[in-house]
Amino acid sequence: MFLPLLFTISLLFSSSAHASVLDFCVADPSLPDGPAGYSCKNPAKVTVDDFVYHALGIPGNTSNFIKAAITTAFAPQFPGVNGLGISIARADLAVGGLVPLHTHPGASEIIYMVKGKISAGFISSSSNTVYYKTLRKGDVMVFPQGLMHFQVNTGKHVATAIASFGSPNPGVQLTPFALFANNLPSAIVEKTTFLDDAEVKKLKAVLGGTG
Amino acid sequence: MFLPLLFTISLLFSSSAHASVLDFCVADPSLPDGPAGYSCKNPAKVTVDDFVYHALGIPGNTSNFIKAAITTAFAPQFPGVNGLGISIARADLAVGGLVPLHTHPGASEIIYMVKGKISAGFISSSSNTVYYKTLRKGDVMVFPQGLMHFQVNTGKHVATAIASFGSPNPGVQLTPFALFANNLPSAIVEKTTFLDDAEVKKLKAVLGGTG
Amino acid sequence: MFLPLLFTISLLFSSSAHASVLDFCVADPSLPDGPAGYSCKNPAKVTVDDFVYHALGIPGNTSNFIKAAITTAFAPQFPGVNGLGISIARADLAVGGLVPLHTHPGASEIIYMVKGKISAGFISSSSNTVYYKTLRKGDVMVFPQGLMHFQVNTGKHVATAIASFGSPNPGVQLTPFALFANNLPSAIVEKTTFLDDAEVKKLKAVLGGTG
Amino acid sequence: MFLPLLFTISLLFSSSAHASVLDFCVADPSLPDGPAGYSCKNPAKVTVDDFVYHALGIPGNTSNFIKAAITTAFAPQFPGVNGLGISIARADLAVGGLVPLHTHPGASEIIYMVKGKISAGFISSSSNTVYYKTLRKGDVMVFPQGLMHFQVNTGKHVATAIASFGSPNPGVQLTPFALFANNLPSAIVEKTTFLDDAEVKKLKAVLGGTG
Amino acid sequence: MFLPLLFTISLLFSSSAHASVLDFCVADPSLPDGPAGYSCKNPAKVTVDDFVYHALGIPGNTSNFIKAAITTAFAPQFPGVNGLGISIARADLAVGGLVPLHTHPGASEIIYMVKGKISAGFISSSSNTVYYKTLRKGDVMVFPQGLMHFQVNTGKHVATAIASFGSPNPGVQLTPFALFANNLPSAIVEKTTFLDDAEVKKLKAVLGGTG
Amino acid sequence: MFLPLLFTISLLFSSSAHASVLDFCVADPSLPDGPAGYSCKNPAKVTVDDFVYHALGIPGNTSNFIKAAITTAFAPQFPGVNGLGISIARADLAVGGLVPLHTHPGASEIIYMVKGKISAGFISSSSNTVYYKTLRKGDVMVFPQGLMHFQVNTGKHVATAIASFGSPNPGVQLTPFALFANNLPSAIVEKTTFLDDAEVKKLKAVLGGTG
Repeated sequence: MFLPLLFTISLLFSSSAHASVLDFCVADPSLPDGPAGYSCKNPAKVTVDDFVYHALGIPGNTSNFIKAAITTAFAPQFPGVNGLGISIARADLAVGGLVPLHTHPGASEIIYMVKGKISAGFISSSSNTVYYKTLRKGDVMVFPQGLMHFQVNTGKHVATAIASFGSPNPGVQLTPFALFANNLPSAIVEKTTFLDDAEVKKLKAVLGGTG
Repeated sequence: MFLPLLFTISLLFSSSAHASVLDFCVADPSLPDGPAGYSCKNPAKVTVDDFVYHALGIPGNTSNFIKAAITTAFAPQFPGVNGLGISIARADLAVGGLVPLHTHPGASEIIYMVKGKISAGFISSSSNTVYYKTLRKGDVMVFPQGLMHFQVNTGKHVATAIASFGSPNPGVQLTPFALFANNLPSAIVEKTTFLDDAEVKKLKAVLGGTG
Repeated sequence: MFLPLLFTISLLFSSSAHASVLDFCVADPSLPDGPAGYSCKNPAKVTVDDFVYHALGIPGNTSNFIKAAITTAFAPQFPGVNGLGISIARADLAVGGLVPLHTHPGASEIIYMVKGKISAGFISSSSNTVYYKTLRKGDVMVFPQGLMHFQVNTGKHVATAIASFGSPNPGVQLTPFALFANNLPSAIVEKTTFLDDAEVKKLKAVLGGTG
Repeated sequence: MFLPLLFTISLLFSSSAHASVLDFCVADPSLPDGPAGYSCKNPAKVTVDDFVYHALGIPGNTSNFIKAAITTAFAPQFPGVNGLGISIARADLAVGGLVPLHTHPGASEIIYMVKGKISAGFISSSSNTVYYKTLRKGDVMVFPQGLMHFQVNTGKHVATAIASFGSPNPGVQLTPFALFANNLPSAIVEKTTFLDDAEVKKLKAVLGGTG
Repeated sequence: MFLPLLFTISLLFSSSAHASVLDFCVADPSLPDGPAGYSCKNPAKVTVDDFVYHALGIPGNTSNFIKAAITTAFAPQFPGVNGLGISIARADLAVGGLVPLHTHPGASEIIYMVKGKISAGFISSSSNTVYYKTLRKGDVMVFPQGLMHFQVNTGKHVATAIASFGSPNPGVQLTPFALFANNLPSAIVEKTTFLDDAEVKKLKAVLGGTG
Repeated sequence: MFLPLLFTISLLFSSSAHASVLDFCVADPSLPDGPAGYSCKNPAKVTVDDFVYHALGIPGNTSNFIKAAITTAFAPQFPGVNGLGISIARADLAVGGLVPLHTHPGASEIIYMVKGKISAGFISSSSNTVYYKTLRKGDVMVFPQGLMHFQVNTGKHVATAIASFGSPNPGVQLTPFALFANNLPSAIVEKTTFLDDAEVKKLKAVLGGTG
C-alpha cells in the first residue's frame, strides 16, 4: 500500500535533481582555495571520517623550549570544519610550560581547562588594560578577537586545555617569533619595539632570525 | 563635436582594463564550489536567461503521499542567484496536502499565499512555543532561521504559496524523512526521539529507511 | 510515573534560567535602533501576529503618475523580519504603469509574476550591459544587489508581482526622484548627469524639487 | 629623561579621547538587545570575571528522564562572549543517558570527548544521509549548522563532552520536545510527522504537551 | 645551548604541517573566481609586491569629456586586497571636471581631499534628501553604501582625492552611462526616467548608446 | 496639471509611513552601543556635517617619543561611519619618526603615501615571513587583518600617509605598549616574550607600566 511512496518522494522537490552541497563543504586541498576557504570535496566521497578527528586525544610533545605543545584541528588538518566558522585545538603545558604572547588574526577563542592550573590573560587595545586570572580544572575563559593573550602553567602538574575558535583556520601569530624569528633587520625591530640592540640580537639568535 | 567622447570613456576608469565580475557571480557547476557558493560563469557568456526562471509558473505534481509539491529555484536550478543571498520556490498543496515539519539550516523564509487556505506555523527553540495561524490569499508569514515549521492545506481548494529564502541554496531537512528515511538504526531513533519501536519500524518501512 | 519528568525538563539546560531571545528579534521601534536593525521586542509579548502580515493581499492604489503602487512588508511595517535578513513587497502596475529606474542599496531582489506581462531589466555596472526580458505569469527574475533596474507593464491588463529582498529593510532609491525631487541645485544635476537645463527644471517642477 | 613620555603617549592617537568599546562588548542584559546581541556593558565596569566562567567545571545533574545534563556558557550566562561569535557548553551523560535529536538554528558545533564513550551523529538535509560514529576520550566531531544530531552514551561509564559553538547564543531545538511539549494540536503533529495518534498523545502526556 | 630550539619550534604546532593560506588570499585571476572573490595565489609565490601598488601616484589623464580620471586599485589591478574587504582609488578632477552621479553597489566609500576644492554629496533613499558640502584639502566625507553620489571640482585648480571602499571590488555604476550608454530602447528609458525623447536620444548619441 | 503628483508620490510606497533609518546609522553615543556599533542618531537630526570630518587636514603633533602622530576618524570621532564598515586616519611621521609594531584586531588597512618616504611591512602568522618595502609618495600598501605591522620614516622629510580600514572602529594594539605600559607582572612578560628582566623593567619604566 505504501509502496508507491518510495517512487514519489523524489518528486517532492521536483527541481532539485541537480542539487549539490547544501549542508557542508568538506575541504578538498587539491582544488583552488579562496577567501571563504577551501573548495568542497565531492559530496559523494564524503564520509563520517571527514567530520571526526582523533589527534586531540594524544598529549602533545612538550620536550621543547617552551615546554608546551599545541595540537590543532583546523581546516588543513580537519577538513570537515571548512566553511563552518569554527575549529578546535589542544594545548599541553608541562610544569613551567607556557604559550607565548600571541594573537589569532580575526578569531575569538574560548579555552576549557581539562586539568591543571594556569595563569591566562589578554591585553585590550584601547587602554592596554590587562585582564588575567588563575584558571583551574573546569574553568573557561574567552579571548576576544585579535588581542594579544597568553597562558602560563603556574601549577605543579601538567596542564591541558581545549581551545575553540570562531574560524576554521584562525592562524596564530606568536609575538616573540614574529619579532625575532625572521629576517626583519634588527634596526627596524629595535626602532618599532623600543628594545635594545643586544636583546634583539640575542633573541634573533635564539629563535632563528637573521639580520 | 561629441565624437571624441566615444574614445575617452574607456579611459575614465583607467586601471579597469582587466576588470572581472563585479555585480554578480552566475553559478558555473562545472567548476569547483566553495563555502560561499559555486564558481562564477565567465561573464562574457552570461545572458539575461541566467537571471530568469520559468519553472515556478507550472503547478507541481501533487499526486503523491503528501499531496504536495515544492518546485525550487535555488542556485543549482537557477544559477543567477548564486552569491546573492536569496532564492525562491513554489509550493502547491492539493486538498488535504501538506509540507511535513522541516527546517532550512541557516536560512529564514517568507511565504506569500497566492491562493487557498493553509495552517502554517513554527516552533521556537527556547521554550518550544508554537506560533501558528490560518493564512489566506495575500497573507505573508515569516519563519525564522533554522526553526521547525509546517504548512497544511486546511481549505477546500488547492493552495499555492511562493516561498522566498535568505540563502541561494537553503536546503531543507524534512523531519519525518530525517528520522525514518535512512539507515540510522531503529534503536538510536527510538532512544533519541522517545518513539515506540513499532512506530519507528512502521515509518521506516513507509519512508524507505532501513535498520 | 512520568510525572516527575515535568519538573526535570527545565533542569536539562541547567544554566539557561536567564535565557533571552534566541530565535528571532521582533522589532520594537520604541527602543533605539542600530546598524543591525531595531531592538528586540520583549519575547514574552511576541505573538504569531508579529510574524504574519495581511496588507500584501490588497491591491495598491495605482491612481497616480506612474500608474503603479508598491506595498512593502519591510521591518518598519512587518516587525517579525527584523534581524532575519529578508523582506517582501507587492507591486501593482496598472495598464501602462511602471516602476521607475531604481536601486536597492545593498539588497538583491527576486520578483515572482503573479499575473500580467511586464518588461523588466537591470543594468550591470562594469560595462553598462542591459539584461532585460518580457516576464509573464509564473516567471521569476533576480536583480543583483545595488544595480539599477525597472519594471514596465507591457501587457493589456494589470500586472502584479511579489518582490522578495535579501534585507529586512532594503530601501529604494528611485532614480528620477533622486535626481529631481529634492533641493539639489539644477546646475549640479545638469553637470553630473549631462541633462539639459530645461529638462532638469521641467522635471524638478513635476516631481517637486526646488533649486 | 623619559618622564615627558608619560604625558605624550595619550596624544599619540589624538582624536581618540572619546574612544569607546573596541575589542569586546560584554553583555548588559539590563539594556535593550538587538539582532547582533546584547547591548554592551560600560567598559569601565568590565572586569576579568566577565571573561571567565566556572560552572562548566561542575558535573550536571543527570537524575532525569534522559539521564543527561547540558550546562551552557552562552551569552545569557557568560556575558563575555556577547558579540564574539562563539560559546561553549558541557554535556554529561550518565550510563544509558542521551541528548535527544536536536538542532542549533544557525550555529555549527564541535564536541570534544573529555571522557567516556558515545555514539554521535547528524543527518544531512539533501539526502537524509546519516553520518554517525562511536567517539571515545579525546575524539572530536563537528556537526554542521542547523542539522539534526544526537549523542548517546553507549559505554559503561559516565560520558562528558565539551561542546563549542559558532554563535554566542546558539539556541537548541530538541526534536521530541518541539513535537510533543507544547500546545500544537495533535492532529497537526500527526499530519506533519506521519506519526500515529496514539503515539503523539502518549508523548504529549509524557513531555507535558496539550491539545 | 639554544641550538636544539631551532628544531623544536616546528613541533610547537604539531598538526600544522599541511597549513595553507591563513592571513591573506592574493588573487590569482588564472583560477576560477567565486562569490567571495578570486582564488588564492600559491602562498609560496606571494611577494611583498602583491601588497604594494604604484599607479595611484600618477595623476590620471583628464583630457576627456568629464575632465576627470579615476585610477582604481581594486582586486583586478591590486591582487593583495582580494578577500580583505577593502580597496582604494584616486580621483583627479581638472578645473571644471566632475565625477558624474554614480553608485557603488554594496560598498561604502570615504574620500580624503589631497588637494583642491570640490562640491560632493549623496542622496538618501528614504526621502531623497541631499547631503552635500564643499570639501577642501584635508577634508573627508563618507558616502553610505549603494547611494547615488557625485563630486564636482568647484575650485580654480586641479582637485585630487583618495577614495577608499569597503569592498575589494566595489564596482561603479555611473548614472548617465547606465541610462544612455547601452542598447536599452529609448522608449523604456523615457518611461522609467520621465525624460523627454529628444533628451534621451541626444544623450544616447553622445554617450554611445543605441536603440 | 502635474500638481496632483505632489500628493500621490507619498502614496507610491504605501506602507512606508513609519519608515526609519534605511541608508545609514549615524552614531549617537548617548544611547547604548552593541556588537554591531553605536545606536543610530534620530535621522531627522542628521545633517551633512555628520558625514564630513575636518581634523585629518591638520598635521598631528609629532613632538613626542616616537616623533609621530595618528589622527583617527573612527566612529567615536566621526559618527557618520558607524555601521558602514570603513573608517580612515592620518599618520604624520617626523624625520626619524615611526609607528611602533601594532595590530588592528579584525580590520585590514590600506595606506596611501601623501608625501615622504617610509619603510613599511607586516609579518605573516603562518611562517613569520616579513613583507616589507620602501614606500614613496603615491604608493599604497595593504596590511591584512590582525597582522603585526609597522611604518618607519626612512626619508629626510616629514612623511604623511592616509590609512583606511575595513571597520568603523578598528582599534589599535601597539605591541610595545601592550607589553610594557600596564600592570602585567614583569615575570609574566618575561616568560611569555623571552625578554630579559632588565629589559622588561626598563621599558616598563619608560612606558609607564608597573609590576
